[in-house]
Amino acid sequence: MSEKKIPYKIYLEEHEMPKKWYNLRADMKNKPAPLLNPGTLKPMTADELAPVFCKDLILQELDDTTPYFDIPTEIQDFYKMYRPAPLVRAYCLEKHLQTPAKIYYKFEGNNTSGSHKLNSAIAQAYYAKKQGLKGVTTETGAGQWGTALSMACSYFDLDCKVYMVKVSYEQKPFRREVMRTYGASVTPSPSTETNVGRKILEQFPGTSGSLGCAISEAVEVATTSEGYRYVLGSVLNQVLLHQSVIGLETKAALDKYNITPDIIIGCAGGGSNLGGLIAPFMGEKLRGEKDYRFIAVEPASCPSLTRGKYAYDFCDTGMVCPLAKMYTLGSSYIPAPNHAGGLRYHGMSSTLSQLYDDGLMEAVSVTQTDVFKAAEEFARVEGILPAPESSHAIKVAIDEALKCKDNGEEKTIVFGLTGTGYFDMMAYEKFHDGKMENYIPTDDEIAKSLEKLPVIPNI
Amino acid sequence: MSEKKIPYKIYLEEHEMPKKWYNLRADMKNKPAPLLNPGTLKPMTADELAPVFCKDLILQELDDTTPYFDIPTEIQDFYKMYRPAPLVRAYCLEKHLQTPAKIYYKFEGNNTSGSHKLNSAIAQAYYAKKQGLKGVTTETGAGQWGTALSMACSYFDLDCKVYMVKVSYEQKPFRREVMRTYGASVTPSPSTETNVGRKILEQFPGTSGSLGCAISEAVEVATTSEGYRYVLGSVLNQVLLHQSVIGLETKAALDKYNITPDIIIGCAGGGSNLGGLIAPFMGEKLRGEKDYRFIAVEPASCPSLTRGKYAYDFCDTGMVCPLAKMYTLGSSYIPAPNHAGGLRYHGMSSTLSQLYDDGLMEAVSVTQTDVFKAAEEFARVEGILPAPESSHAIKVAIDEALKCKDNGEEKTIVFGLTGTGYFDMMAYEKFHDGKMENYIPTDDEIAKSLEKLPVIPNI
Repeated sequence: MSEKKIPYKIYLEEHEMPKKWYNLRADMKNKPAPLLNPGTLKPMTADELAPVFCKDLILQELDDTTPYFDIPTEIQDFYKMYRPAPLVRAYCLEKHLQTPAKIYYKFEGNNTSGSHKLNSAIAQAYYAKKQGLKGVTTETGAGQWGTALSMACSYFDLDCKVYMVKVSYEQKPFRREVMRTYGASVTPSPSTETNVGRKILEQFPGTSGSLGCAISEAVEVATTSEGYRYVLGSVLNQVLLHQSVIGLETKAALDKYNITPDIIIGCAGGGSNLGGLIAPFMGEKLRGEKDYRFIAVEPASCPSLTRGKYAYDFCDTGMVCPLAKMYTLGSSYIPAPNHAGGLRYHGMSSTLSQLYDDGLMEAVSVTQTDVFKAAEEFARVEGILPAPESSHAIKVAIDEALKCKDNGEEKTIVFGLTGTGYFDMMAYEKFHDGKMENYIPTDDEIAKSLEKLPVIPNI
Repeated sequence: MSEKKIPYKIYLEEHEMPKKWYNLRADMKNKPAPLLNPGTLKPMTADELAPVFCKDLILQELDDTTPYFDIPTEIQDFYKMYRPAPLVRAYCLEKHLQTPAKIYYKFEGNNTSGSHKLNSAIAQAYYAKKQGLKGVTTETGAGQWGTALSMACSYFDLDCKVYMVKVSYEQKPFRREVMRTYGASVTPSPSTETNVGRKILEQFPGTSGSLGCAISEAVEVATTSEGYRYVLGSVLNQVLLHQSVIGLETKAALDKYNITPDIIIGCAGGGSNLGGLIAPFMGEKLRGEKDYRFIAVEPASCPSLTRGKYAYDFCDTGMVCPLAKMYTLGSSYIPAPNHAGGLRYHGMSSTLSQLYDDGLMEAVSVTQTDVFKAAEEFARVEGILPAPESSHAIKVAIDEALKCKDNGEEKTIVFGLTGTGYFDMMAYEKFHDGKMENYIPTDDEIAKSLEKLPVIPNI
């Protein structure tokens, strides 16, 4: 019982930082289902993916057997600029809740992109540069991913074209300016620059856009411009691979102090943060070495895991991307206005979907006002102003800590604090003014959207 | 020559963090001149200051002989939530500039207030709480100080009334919302809540306010409300004392790797950051132990050190505060619109003024567009989006590093990166759009403002 005094923040030394990413799929008995070509309904080959994605990233995307990938030195060097991210012991939150639980959070917001997205952005930019490309295209909703990619492209001197959901482009001019500071071009989507954009504008004049639509535009531009490829900030296996740096650092920090968590909690939109955070812990669980509870938290307005269907679906609304097997609300599902823009995605990473389907992970959904209440509570005692996305995890971490209080259990809870909310103050304002509304889709709405799932014969 | 490899970021361990603040005045042969009572023109006594400031803070304000003050445990605990701030080796900036200089920056932006202001806010809130007060009042311009104080008051459960310069209140609604998240009340100044506010509104209907006017309102409310005191985020000796934590951490981090800086650079508005950063180094210089170059950087639009006069003047436009001897442009000087709101102050800390007058410190002024150019350059290579205030220091650090390149000198440069620019994107937008203007006051303008300095007989 010689416990080392645990500091408020555990930082790894530079030499303790991960030098390899961990590929969780290598340890999964039931592998995530492959991407399908929507034309042939056969698994996408590397050649078929080559016009859309960078070569090295395709190798990572398709490889479900290699457990570790070296992090190239150039990426390690960039990581050193803003990592390691601290693992914080939430002493003040514990005291405030009067819980015997021990709460930790991995804080990924201490970089200018404001979130964990930079971990994968820099990797994707690196491989694009290595391939000799001119630039990359992408979509962004709330703007974290676009900002992260702009920073990464600026670092490697790559052109960066961002299609930003029009409503966010208008409501978040500051995000747009951050991207411009890093030299990116930012276009409101749908735009008249692409065929798919023009088609959507014709069909829905005055539409404020959607993530699915922005994806379709970015993919079109990537595949029709010489020297460009498309990059994506979540959902894909390669993204979860890069984000494993979150979990690896978390685990190394916990190991330093002999801490074993009982519960690991993360918000889940496309799954990039949660997949990264839990990776090495889930690996231990899959290999039968240890057991943990994992909880995915999603917004009640976009409950893919808790109310969706495990099926093949399009990754984008425009239906130009490959099909992925995942928990989905249907690619035509339009999530209600929810300020956690990063969680407004109809589907979920195939890897996390498979783990959830195998009963290895739990999921809960929470309403927006409950999330902001938890966010404000957290901000006041822990000092950090959390992003709405991250606050989903805070809400459930608090719930679990209060259960510990009721039961007198000294559980150790770890959650992912993915980012900061500086660009979400309009949402906070609504909350302060009592104007924030909750939206929970009816069963009928979800069923209707799921009717439009593509029909896939058994393969 | 067995040099330890220097990491990108030097973090102190929790146990290495400072446990005492350093009071630079104790080592000054020429002490900063005392505050004067504007009525009697005699040095302000503790009793005279008691209706405005907290008791313990007055002791700190007036003490120019005690070299160290213990940091109370409660404040140390709060510091542990967001400190130590990293000392960053700017490897990427060095490479980008192709300079043989070694550049380091102390980054104070990794907390929700976005700047170093929190270091003093938490101390001032602590002493207010200790005194059994209900709350505190203050003014804020750009909003960093108001945010920091809101966070500190929320932590100690104190009421916090912020008077925010009206133009900022309107232009920076997000800053306002951050303060509301922490439970502060935020009033646009001038307001109809105070005598001085009503008087100003009568005289100048439609005015967009000024820092000096907001100070006057906050002081009036503090002195006329039971259980309230006024707190200030810069200029005062007590603030420099608290901010010495910046310099102490910087020095401890450098010492760990046997690094001795040649040049130390900081932006200077009221002097809180610069005074804190240089404190322990200046102490060594004053005691004849070591020598360093210190450079204060101010905006060309508000050049108190470089073009002001060393004289007694009012700290506020409303002339309700004591007189301080300082480099000043005159308390009636209205700085032109400059996006570095934190540097738009007509005066300068008495301590720094004295050091500058004694030739112990240099000062330069830089134009706004040059500052934003440096800010963008820095953001692109170092990843961090700097506040306009901090970018003044970046500009001069880059200039000095380029001189080293010309001369082939391997100097070590340390500068203070006081905060982040997330709430300054409107200024960045102007810069991107080529709409940013420089303003440099004429000699005549400054002379005119200096004519109105109060007349102080020799004392």
